[in-house]
Amino acid sequence: MKLTADEMGDMPAEEFRQYGHQLVEWVADFLTRINDIPAFPDVQPRDIQRKLPTTPPAKGETMEDILADIDRVVMPGMAHWNHPRCFAYFNSSGSGPGILGELLSAAFNVNSMLWHSCPAATELEEVTLDWLRQMLHLPREFWGVIYDGGSTSTMHAIAAAREQLVDLKIRELGLAGRPEVPRLRIYTSEHGHSSIDKASVALGLGLESVRRVAVDDAYRMLPHALDEAIGEDRRSGVLPFCVVATVGTTSCTSLDPIAEIADICERERLWLHVDGAHGGAAAILPEMQSLFEGWERADSIVVNPHKWLFVPLDLSVLYTRKRDALRGAFSLTPEYLRTAQGEEVTNYMDYGIPLGRRFRALKLWFVLRYFGVEGVAGRIRKHLALARQFAEQVDSHMNFERLAPVPLSTVCFRAHPAGMDDEESLNQLNEELLQAINRSGQAFLSHTKLSGRYVLRLVISQLRTEESHIHSFWQLAQQTLKAVQAETTPGFEQWQG
Amino acid sequence: MKLTADEMGDMPAEEFRQYGHQLVEWVADFLTRINDIPAFPDVQPRDIQRKLPTTPPAKGETMEDILADIDRVVMPGMAHWNHPRCFAYFNSSGSGPGILGELLSAAFNVNSMLWHSCPAATELEEVTLDWLRQMLHLPREFWGVIYDGGSTSTMHAIAAAREQLVDLKIRELGLAGRPEVPRLRIYTSEHGHSSIDKASVALGLGLESVRRVAVDDAYRMLPHALDEAIGEDRRSGVLPFCVVATVGTTSCTSLDPIAEIADICERERLWLHVDGAHGGAAAILPEMQSLFEGWERADSIVVNPHKWLFVPLDLSVLYTRKRDALRGAFSLTPEYLRTAQGEEVTNYMDYGIPLGRRFRALKLWFVLRYFGVEGVAGRIRKHLALARQFAEQVDSHMNFERLAPVPLSTVCFRAHPAGMDDEESLNQLNEELLQAINRSGQAFLSHTKLSGRYVLRLVISQLRTEESHIHSFWQLAQQTLKAVQAETTPGFEQWQG
Repeated sequence: MKLTADEMGDMPAEEFRQYGHQLVEWVADFLTRINDIPAFPDVQPRDIQRKLPTTPPAKGETMEDILADIDRVVMPGMAHWNHPRCFAYFNSSGSGPGILGELLSAAFNVNSMLWHSCPAATELEEVTLDWLRQMLHLPREFWGVIYDGGSTSTMHAIAAAREQLVDLKIRELGLAGRPEVPRLRIYTSEHGHSSIDKASVALGLGLESVRRVAVDDAYRMLPHALDEAIGEDRRSGVLPFCVVATVGTTSCTSLDPIAEIADICERERLWLHVDGAHGGAAAILPEMQSLFEGWERADSIVVNPHKWLFVPLDLSVLYTRKRDALRGAFSLTPEYLRTAQGEEVTNYMDYGIPLGRRFRALKLWFVLRYFGVEGVAGRIRKHLALARQFAEQVDSHMNFERLAPVPLSTVCFRAHPAGMDDEESLNQLNEELLQAINRSGQAFLSHTKLSGRYVLRLVISQLRTEESHIHSFWQLAQQTLKAVQAETTPGFEQWQG
Repeated sequence: MKLTADEMGDMPAEEFRQYGHQLVEWVADFLTRINDIPAFPDVQPRDIQRKLPTTPPAKGETMEDILADIDRVVMPGMAHWNHPRCFAYFNSSGSGPGILGELLSAAFNVNSMLWHSCPAATELEEVTLDWLRQMLHLPREFWGVIYDGGSTSTMHAIAAAREQLVDLKIRELGLAGRPEVPRLRIYTSEHGHSSIDKASVALGLGLESVRRVAVDDAYRMLPHALDEAIGEDRRSGVLPFCVVATVGTTSCTSLDPIAEIADICERERLWLHVDGAHGGAAAILPEMQSLFEGWERADSIVVNPHKWLFVPLDLSVLYTRKRDALRGAFSLTPEYLRTAQGEEVTNYMDYGIPLGRRFRALKLWFVLRYFGVEGVAGRIRKHLALARQFAEQVDSHMNFERLAPVPLSTVCFRAHPAGMDDEESLNQLNEELLQAINRSGQAFLSHTKLSGRYVLRLVISQLRTEESHIHSFWQLAQQTLKAVQAETTPGFEQWQG
């Protein structure tokens, strides 16, 4: 068979070397100068799209041209999650060792669905997840599996909880058209994550199966309200089966009182899933243990190393002490996936929907080894300290106020200029402030609402964030507030003067 | 704040440069010499685990030590999916441009859940998926979204199909405890993928909701059998809602007659989902269009660029002409994810469970540009030709036989020595043959069963596979058969003499 150029295999090795080195230099420069790059882009919808051809190239292009388009097309449209002043959402840090781990993982490009399909990938996943379990101070009974994200982990946890209702034979018969299957109920606080609702939709339980339990003034689930809700549901013929407690809610990182919730779950025989997707990382710190008290009694726990553990997206871990329930829901082996190994190996495909499983454990292994337990803990500890410092500055400023406790490293605050007390005006002012801050490119920030109030969330969990970045952000926030007020209040600047 | 070493940020840039370059060299060497590396490892369960500490390191380690462990710990346990003689499962090619795209994606480490959370990632996803749509000769109405794998794509497609039953209000109320919701039915052929069953479990429909339709002697769904099954279900009060047709079944890449199935789906008003996770890639070739006739009438189609389009894991695309149904099932925006942009932008989180979405479009963009449409098509065309060649060799060999047609690039065959006609013995012989081939490290192969017969599957879709690799595999298969027979049949070798 004589091959034409279009039938040749991969990029030649020499070319891979050349552009690999070029790209490593590009990335190193990018990470070095990232502090001076806008954290948030100044673009309008379709600005990026307009720079791209509407049809794919018929002939191959050079890597030279492709890499040039990173600067021409991609960079102007980037919101930089790896920026030291990225405080938005729950951000994610692509650390150096994590990036290198990802490079290697792409080069291997194996599928870890079965032990047999790549023994090293399966065993490294088991070992690194057990290391992380120990770091989180979780007992030996917890066994872990990697999924893409926290939403997927939580969906699988709720599916396992549902599978525990063995008499209902839901795996075999489903939920529809079966008069003997009652309506099912999941409980979470008013601040539980939206992924619980999405999971309930996917799992055929419906949005109404999620009951939101009231919180206290620190946004933590009220155990007595949970207790009452369960009782009420049981009396009306609804079947409670799962409680999702949160350690580190998305809006304000409140931590539900897990021990009390675990008591209720044990008494009521409900599956307790703990959502520690972001906040769970703080359990690595010995001094933070009290906030997590009781989570070791959970049936399942999600922690995302791609959030506050410096591992690039995506890598979420679901730990469970009821591995059999998860397996009972999802194990299903057609002939083409049968292997000679029996129970002595783990076939991760038995524990979920995904079959194409990348070698994600590599990057976690790189990160845990490079930083070490103390290095990971120290960086999280620094974030906690920076958040406390920032909270104090907000508290002592006459035109800003804090709107929630700061148990972890997220500060919920807003501008509240002296004399402006109308909530609607305050909401509008803060929305404008947020947009102006992002528009400046100096920081990337997101918001939430707490008790109807528009709140700015300063999430300090980026690996590259140092004290100086918080300091410059604080200057920026104050200056931007003045500018926004000057724009919206004619004569304001003179009056402030 | 004075920082200790344990509180410092990321790996220093100079170190990233040094080890980045070192790793690029390692990867280039690996890809250069991969032909001489065992495709499949000689390991027993826990061999890799035993080389690793049982506890995480307290102090950080050097990248020097970490990278050294790639050779010491990881490599001896690798099954190499990037190997030119990886013919197992539906393999995946991590091409050079794909690996470089992944490196960049990890360095950016953004989350493309919202347009706002990274405009470039969202718009590049839209543009590249539209390029791929054109390459696949699909009409403009198809809109795409990236998920991790085909199983996830199919689960979302079936969820969208379920959402189309609007009167049942499944999103709001779920399926349980509702006498007005009948049992629902999904149809797929006896050779449809196991992800359909897994999706039915997850979605609360139950395994029994999947009805397997009979196939013809080329393992293609029989439309009249589908028709009869639907009629039978309707008469017994079960509600048909979805048909999953396959173009490229997992066992033998048979292609269901989509046009006839589409006729039935239109008449019966059923959602037609086409599983082209692997085989869909062949639709890029103009000369293959007839095999895909009718798929342009599907409601949704899954194609995995991480299978036969040279993009590293993971990247699956779900195309649908009913974007609103998918969105109707999964759109749910809590306050902390609200943005200023309205309908003029795509927020990909509205279309599924995953919220943490990597910048996967980058690697697809790199691959499509580097190879170009003709380069991608040429490589697939070469695989098709190699498979035909191999099939002919099998057909003309007295001790081997082919067990299925070869519409794409997968050859299902087995050893069938003259005179050995007991099916059980043949199955045992072929299982031993497979294991001996893998044990040799010379190739990585997997199996299936067709009509009760143990079948070796030669899947030719690795980017690096050339004619010489097929040739050496064929020699290996013949020699290994002799060796296996010699072992199991005393005196065989003399007899063969």
